[in-house]
Amino acid sequence: MVSFDKYKSVHLLSKLSKNPIDLKKALTTSRVKQFKAKNIGFNFLFACERIDENIFNILLDLAKESKALDKIYDMQSGKKINFIENVESENTQILHTATRDFFGDSIGDKKARDKAFLEIEKLKEFLDKKNGFFENIIHIGIGGSILGVRSMYYALKGFSKKKKKVYFISNIDPDDLSRVLEEVDLSKTVVISVSKSGTTLETLTNEIFIREELKKNNLNPKNHIISVTSKNSKMDDKNRYLEVFYIWDYISGRFSSTSMVGGVTISLSLGFDIYFEVLKGANAMDRVAREKNMLNNLPLISALLSIWNRNFLKYQTNIISAYSKALWYLCFLVQQLEMESNGKSIDKKGKKVNFETGSIIWGDIGTDAQHSFFQFLHQGTDIAHIEFIGFLKSQYEKDLKIEETTSQEKLISNLIAQSIALAMGKKSDNLNKKFEGNRPSSILSCDRLTPFSFGALLSYYENKVTFEGFIWNINSFDQEGVQLGKVLSKKMLAFFAKKEKFELGEAFLKEMKD
Amino acid sequence: MVSFDKYKSVHLLSKLSKNPIDLKKALTTSRVKQFKAKNIGFNFLFACERIDENIFNILLDLAKESKALDKIYDMQSGKKINFIENVESENTQILHTATRDFFGDSIGDKKARDKAFLEIEKLKEFLDKKNGFFENIIHIGIGGSILGVRSMYYALKGFSKKKKKVYFISNIDPDDLSRVLEEVDLSKTVVISVSKSGTTLETLTNEIFIREELKKNNLNPKNHIISVTSKNSKMDDKNRYLEVFYIWDYISGRFSSTSMVGGVTISLSLGFDIYFEVLKGANAMDRVAREKNMLNNLPLISALLSIWNRNFLKYQTNIISAYSKALWYLCFLVQQLEMESNGKSIDKKGKKVNFETGSIIWGDIGTDAQHSFFQFLHQGTDIAHIEFIGFLKSQYEKDLKIEETTSQEKLISNLIAQSIALAMGKKSDNLNKKFEGNRPSSILSCDRLTPFSFGALLSYYENKVTFEGFIWNINSFDQEGVQLGKVLSKKMLAFFAKKEKFELGEAFLKEMKD
Repeated sequence: MVSFDKYKSVHLLSKLSKNPIDLKKALTTSRVKQFKAKNIGFNFLFACERIDENIFNILLDLAKESKALDKIYDMQSGKKINFIENVESENTQILHTATRDFFGDSIGDKKARDKAFLEIEKLKEFLDKKNGFFENIIHIGIGGSILGVRSMYYALKGFSKKKKKVYFISNIDPDDLSRVLEEVDLSKTVVISVSKSGTTLETLTNEIFIREELKKNNLNPKNHIISVTSKNSKMDDKNRYLEVFYIWDYISGRFSSTSMVGGVTISLSLGFDIYFEVLKGANAMDRVAREKNMLNNLPLISALLSIWNRNFLKYQTNIISAYSKALWYLCFLVQQLEMESNGKSIDKKGKKVNFETGSIIWGDIGTDAQHSFFQFLHQGTDIAHIEFIGFLKSQYEKDLKIEETTSQEKLISNLIAQSIALAMGKKSDNLNKKFEGNRPSSILSCDRLTPFSFGALLSYYENKVTFEGFIWNINSFDQEGVQLGKVLSKKMLAFFAKKEKFELGEAFLKEMKD
Repeated sequence: MVSFDKYKSVHLLSKLSKNPIDLKKALTTSRVKQFKAKNIGFNFLFACERIDENIFNILLDLAKESKALDKIYDMQSGKKINFIENVESENTQILHTATRDFFGDSIGDKKARDKAFLEIEKLKEFLDKKNGFFENIIHIGIGGSILGVRSMYYALKGFSKKKKKVYFISNIDPDDLSRVLEEVDLSKTVVISVSKSGTTLETLTNEIFIREELKKNNLNPKNHIISVTSKNSKMDDKNRYLEVFYIWDYISGRFSSTSMVGGVTISLSLGFDIYFEVLKGANAMDRVAREKNMLNNLPLISALLSIWNRNFLKYQTNIISAYSKALWYLCFLVQQLEMESNGKSIDKKGKKVNFETGSIIWGDIGTDAQHSFFQFLHQGTDIAHIEFIGFLKSQYEKDLKIEETTSQEKLISNLIAQSIALAMGKKSDNLNKKFEGNRPSSILSCDRLTPFSFGALLSYYENKVTFEGFIWNINSFDQEGVQLGKVLSKKMLAFFAKKEKFELGEAFLKEMKD
């Protein structure tokens, strides 16, 4: 394994990045036509990135040098890739793509596929028997057990015919649960409790809390709580749960959206067909990710551009701005995907890296964000790269023409205008009205946000993040960085329970109380 | 006016920043006691910032050199401060603090105070007459016309006795409105439409959309829509609105949360008393911001530390992480406050600055964020500063002891543990389990999130951002950077309406459609 900073292409890119092109001069209609990639209904437009043809070709060389396509094939086909040489590590397969590889042309690990399909059958059976019983759904989980399904639910709510209400509870903050309990009738409620390990502090606490409330209302918790967990975890217990659905160690939390973690809640609220369409879309984009013709491989090109922006142009952050209210929660999912997977400092040899890894992902939907932080993007002292996402049609297809244009046209106009304005800037003798330009962005678009295209979008980001890790030669699938906080938090709890001293923690608490 | 980079203190800080202290050695219980500031029930703890006593004193010198306290007094007492020398600029007073300066010890511009109080009286009268009539409230606005009130509503919802539902609509995306219309009974709904200028594209479009829907339901829009706008704007029209409440040019959108922009919706949903308590809290913190004893001036100290982190330690971003679900939306408000106010490249002399201004503000609530991007914070290749916010008591005061600690204790334990873990790090021979430490943070805490403390928190951030601008000598009160996007967006709309050509925009649209 060659380290990222030793690749030939990296040296070339490093030199070329000293003089990136001037978009103010370069951005023409022919450039818009030139820098694009298209597949399964998605258009990825990157004319507003600070690259030229030469740089783009070297980026493709980087993909070759780092064997990115071989590695994604290895992952999807079930090779053990979750390891770091020379240190103790998990050494497992990574099979989130295998567990949705049902739609022909399969390469995913057969055992994992079969097991996943069994859960899907179990879910269908459960829906046939029990679906009518509940009006409200409470989904309990945190991190990877909630960010994907929350994003999916809001993205696709518009397609629901059932009008069930879904509440999401994640935080150990007792108010998080209290405000939901105030609104729902528990007798008409089903709770989906999600924890792969069956030991997540926040989830267990909230579940116990709900069990108490159910009992207070003379309801039997067993009839109201479904668990999604690993086989043989504490939550794998049919005596305490209405049903148990399985996930497996080979699916990391942040890559678990399309597993039963998302499947149960989405099927109960929006219907099984919608969930299945999401799987279909995700699988379609998984196949795009292994396209050997790199010009059609959207997640790969996107990963290469992110690396250009992060390691060579030195932009520390990347904004996700979907021009679609339904995608309001997507940014939080991508944030976890990127920052938990690639916020790492050592490579797969166990050595400290001497280059930047994962970016800071943040954002808000457009056009809202234009009225908030876009001032900074246009005239601030730092450059932040932005990824626009847009759709030609709305979901509800209710629209109104005002001054000769529809709202959807206004939305698209804003998206395109911002991308051009950031790139082109504007001269002015009044420096306060001057725009420097050369602030890069990309646009990912498709016809309409549907269950299929949402699934594909989800997989696009999963695969993009995975490619970045492959190219940097880091392990994107562990998260040792969350351990220390857990250890110290337990120490602090032992202090609260009067079992242990923790002087530093106590000093902070004392000052907070003073 | 001396430029920021010419201050003596800036030169000293620049030198000292080459060797910041090692928190791993320095962080002791006595340090926790030393680096703190307290006022009106808030505790600001900054032992985990990379400063020592010497640096802290020089930061206080920077406040003196830049006359930060004189400037905040000038603003609060009504001097014209919204200007830039040598270029055409707005040249107005900035009076958001004056318009809540009703609680004794007033220094705010008397005219502005009186006008604001008249609106409050008008609001009370309106509530007496009309309050019972509506079950649902739809608030329409974008940017500064919605971020503050949305944050306030979710923060204080727990104190509502009325259980009215509030919906927020901001986006030009037609789906934003469609999904709300699907849920509400318009005959029982009042709409608050907010636009200072009376010409905001998104707000006007959504208002027209709702007018059409009301008419379709045989309802008279005049009986269902309240406007909040400037005197003599197009929306100042009692023939078309149930009532009109005023705001004024001397309140920038992002500083308008406590004006009628927030007042009408909060009073209708949660009650006038809650709104009035917010005003009281905000005013109390405004007075803290002009405290001459800088050691008690929380927003000033916080601004100085942010400048240390941004300009000297070169951290580009700042995370807001409240350990309180109710503050989920706060981060978006602070994001606008900082990035729209201070995302500027020229100083008040009209000259280009050669130092960093406003930070990128992002974040998510704790403990959720611990299961998402905290991996990056602990082990990523870049450092991001974090501001923790916490409360000793919950809002609903419903809690459960599990394994000898309450959920609220678990919440606080996590907050303290994270701050210590980030600072102290952990040694390990396995580099994958090593934590570098020296990742700085601060903690702002108070007893409980109440209407008063929320108002104070809001004012804390408003004043902090204002202080930063004063110290950098930039104008925090205009937003010329949003203009270019508007111009190009209009060009694109003219193309959609078949009135004009816009080749570059058309090229993008063509590729999106292909």
